[in-house]
Amino acid sequence: MNNKIKNIILGLVAGNKYMQDLGLEFLDMDEGYMYVRIPVHEGIVNPYGSVHGGALYSLADIGAGFCAATYGNFVSTSTGNLIYIAPAMDTEYVYCEARTLHRGNKIISVSVEIKSDTGKLLDTGAFTFCRLNKEL
Amino acid sequence: MNNKIKNIILGLVAGNKYMQDLGLEFLDMDEGYMYVRIPVHEGIVNPYGSVHGGALYSLADIGAGFCAATYGNFVSTSTGNLIYIAPAMDTEYVYCEARTLHRGNKIISVSVEIKSDTGKLLDTGAFTFCRLNKEL
Amino acid sequence: MNNKIKNIILGLVAGNKYMQDLGLEFLDMDEGYMYVRIPVHEGIVNPYGSVHGGALYSLADIGAGFCAATYGNFVSTSTGNLIYIAPAMDTEYVYCEARTLHRGNKIISVSVEIKSDTGKLLDTGAFTFCRLNKEL
Amino acid sequence: MNNKIKNIILGLVAGNKYMQDLGLEFLDMDEGYMYVRIPVHEGIVNPYGSVHGGALYSLADIGAGFCAATYGNFVSTSTGNLIYIAPAMDTEYVYCEARTLHRGNKIISVSVEIKSDTGKLLDTGAFTFCRLNKEL
Repeated sequence: MNNKIKNIILGLVAGNKYMQDLGLEFLDMDEGYMYVRIPVHEGIVNPYGSVHGGALYSLADIGAGFCAATYGNFVSTSTGNLIYIAPAMDTEYVYCEARTLHRGNKIISVSVEIKSDTGKLLDTGAFTFCRLNKEL
Repeated sequence: MNNKIKNIILGLVAGNKYMQDLGLEFLDMDEGYMYVRIPVHEGIVNPYGSVHGGALYSLADIGAGFCAATYGNFVSTSTGNLIYIAPAMDTEYVYCEARTLHRGNKIISVSVEIKSDTGKLLDTGAFTFCRLNKEL
Repeated sequence: MNNKIKNIILGLVAGNKYMQDLGLEFLDMDEGYMYVRIPVHEGIVNPYGSVHGGALYSLADIGAGFCAATYGNFVSTSTGNLIYIAPAMDTEYVYCEARTLHRGNKIISVSVEIKSDTGKLLDTGAFTFCRLNKEL
Repeated sequence: MNNKIKNIILGLVAGNKYMQDLGLEFLDMDEGYMYVRIPVHEGIVNPYGSVHGGALYSLADIGAGFCAATYGNFVSTSTGNLIYIAPAMDTEYVYCEARTLHRGNKIISVSVEIKSDTGKLLDTGAFTFCRLNKEL
């Protein structure tokens, strides 16, 4: 993918407190593809000892949103949907892999999978984004 | 609603860093009903200047989850779904009102509305929870 | 709402076998609002004796889609989501009320409620539509 | 998978008008897996000439539901979600492959993919089912 777009995405994360607090790290990215992770830490754990559903969703939304942004435009989330399969426990990181399902002029839809250190599937989701007219 | 259950819910929030960092406040609660809010602060804002979709979802998930817990059992989120209607900007707080749609023995489904200070509808969502056998 | 648009919507239903087989009837419509129903008949009942979830979803999708079309453009469904609250049994009709949540230039989102003869809430859902450039 | 369960599933379809009208055919099934298809015919096409979103959802719901039933219990749909990726046009059949994501005692979640004759991905979805206490 375009290096300029890549650097803009990295810069957006570096300058954003929410994503910094989550500890967001990039593992891989390409046009229509995004692979990110966050470390499991006390600040994102629920009273049951597993990662909070909202933190997992945040990871999914961020991964999917940047996936949709790899085409060069800002996007805004239109819908988000997450299915919880297994609790995120006993894992150092939670990983999010996002792939474009459909790239339209107006709507971009993206699927996500969240996995543990061992590759166990924890959550699956689907997001749709409105493609804004503003370039990255 | 039962005062014991109410106090347990308040205690769960008081002892949880994720919900404390969000700044979760209770406005009202009853059996099958939950009304909470979080203040908009730098730590939950996205690069566009509005509240991050993941933070809004976290608010919705927490509100819906506690709504489902008012019947006295722990619950785990099975599915979460959020529709983004308007960006959460120019508002001091974001408010979440959650109501039980269906209370089954196994599954409890809850609808949520997220609004601004002026009552503007920002997001709507629906969550389903698995009712755990463990009492609060 | 515009009478020309209303007549085009009525004509689309009259000429479509899927909607005719369902028995779709219009009860009320306005800009951003649609109220339709279908009679419960043998052809849409599941092996358990209640209306098939796919038929209920079809009703919801049709109601929501025409709601989104009241602004004068063809639309295509982007995402559909339905929460099943109670089985559709012992009712002569199932009713769908659809309301626009957000009308954007690119995306229109719509909420739906499905009810029985007695007004019992059976299902709630949310749909998003891509607004096509083609006018009705 | 158990042959008795397989025959009960085949019998449920044979005796149900809604699934017969859709033209449902089984291609393959196993515990936690279901592969079905329906022929594209005039009765399920929308005014745009592609398969109606409600018919695609019905196919998905049926495939997912029977997938969840392969464990031997009746199930009821709790939530359904479908993302529309490409219109179902120029294909003789639409195919649904459903796989269990999570098999709990109370909730079974299933992912689905709908494809064309050429294997083009048309829709993806996720469903959750309540596992009823009644055996097939």
